Amino acid sequence: MTTGNAARTVTSRVLSVLDAFNGEHRRLTLSEISRRAGMPLATAHRLVGELATWGALERDADGRYQIGLHLWEVAALAPRGLGLREAAMPYLEDLYEATHQHVQLAVLDGVDVVYVERLSARGAVLVRSRVGGRLPAHTTGVGLVLLAHCPVDVLEQYLSRPLVAFTPLTIADPLRLRATLDKVRRSGHAVSDRQVQMDAVSVAAPVRDVEGRVTAALSVIVPFDGMQPAALVPAVVAAAHGISRSLLRRAAAA
Amino acid sequence: MTTGNAARTVTSRVLSVLDAFNGEHRRLTLSEISRRAGMPLATAHRLVGELATWGALERDADGRYQIGLHLWEVAALAPRGLGLREAAMPYLEDLYEATHQHVQLAVLDGVDVVYVERLSARGAVLVRSRVGGRLPAHTTGVGLVLLAHCPVDVLEQYLSRPLVAFTPLTIADPLRLRATLDKVRRSGHAVSDRQVQMDAVSVAAPVRDVEGRVTAALSVIVPFDGMQPAALVPAVVAAAHGISRSLLRRAAAA
Repeated sequence: MTTGNAARTVTSRVLSVLDAFNGEHRRLTLSEISRRAGMPLATAHRLVGELATWGALERDADGRYQIGLHLWEVAALAPRGLGLREAAMPYLEDLYEATHQHVQLAVLDGVDVVYVERLSARGAVLVRSRVGGRLPAHTTGVGLVLLAHCPVDVLEQYLSRPLVAFTPLTIADPLRLRATLDKVRRSGHAVSDRQVQMDAVSVAAPVRDVEGRVTAALSVIVPFDGMQPAALVPAVVAAAHGISRSLLRRAAAA
Repeated sequence: MTTGNAARTVTSRVLSVLDAFNGEHRRLTLSEISRRAGMPLATAHRLVGELATWGALERDADGRYQIGLHLWEVAALAPRGLGLREAAMPYLEDLYEATHQHVQLAVLDGVDVVYVERLSARGAVLVRSRVGGRLPAHTTGVGLVLLAHCPVDVLEQYLSRPLVAFTPLTIADPLRLRATLDKVRRSGHAVSDRQVQMDAVSVAAPVRDVEGRVTAALSVIVPFDGMQPAALVPAVVAAAHGISRSLLRRAAAA
């Protein structure tokens, strides 16, 4: 325990200040940052000051800190964030206009899917996901697509861990999940039927990078109303293909 | 000169590694990072390693570094980035469906406008701006709106500096710019008539935060074809009002 703090580099402290913020903690006082980042108030004060000067943090009218615009500007360069989004946006917009539901683009990060884009109609079903948010991969349509096409060792590691169940319909059994992923691979699309919440169904399809690897997935979420979502499959698959082709064209032009 | 490097904190070095990346430099080798961030290769190597472990940087197939997904996730919490975007998105989508042109949302940062969102049709006019990108405020419709409503000292400082001109129509004369901003304040909208490029016109309107301050601006960019863009004004103003009301509702619900 004595080496813990001494071994902690300044860089790791700076990054732990940033990690103090998440979807449930968007605005923090200095003492909240100090507590959540596990560092003395004086250290937090110094680091927060430097981060605010640069624009990684901003102070609101109440004196609380929030993530700043300059960090957002730099992060907008992430190829799996807004970079991927640029290529995908026209296809997401077409799909949104055709469906007026939630249209989402996601990537796999560890055991979670991370949503990098979402277009949503005002009247669409309320969902758990948000842009920049995460959900366990096996529960979502995009996650089933990404797990179905990920490297074998990543999948085996995923299946060796306990699988959370949000609803009675979540596929939390490894054997059933394997069978589902086989079906996703064969059919070229995935359906998450009320696996995240009982009132929503999603249909997802794979987006391939220039090397043909499935690096992202696209989905439409619709309210569950007893109807089969099969009617959505051709539009979702076509949009996903369109994004893959657009990534190829961009790589060829670069 | 001897104190320069010694006085530079580890935090500032970490941040300068991030600043080595921009729209023209999205993928960098370690030695490029070292040169652009102004630090020895060994220091860059150590910092880049820590940043990559955390997910602020990622390595591509060629061994070059790019901004990573975890930084993007944290940055997605920025209230002037994706936070503002969440409130604005349904209105941007309505405007996009009505116009099928570029629909943009921007904020003021220093002397620049920073674009936090853009929806674009595939066939829309090619423009200089991109999400996360910057343009000098006085040249753009959104920038004219933001300058017209910014604090007096910020405006005076802006007008005291040389004003860049991208086209013969860019208002680069401080007196003419003052008159234009007066008109923007009175009319409730701004028009940038071929001020950024000769083939494009934008119409912009202010978005107000919960305290009534103009903190963002919305615009539609259309190709210049000799038509007056006046027909777009009511839709742009209505969408901007809609976003302001949505920010109020969100604050009331929080």
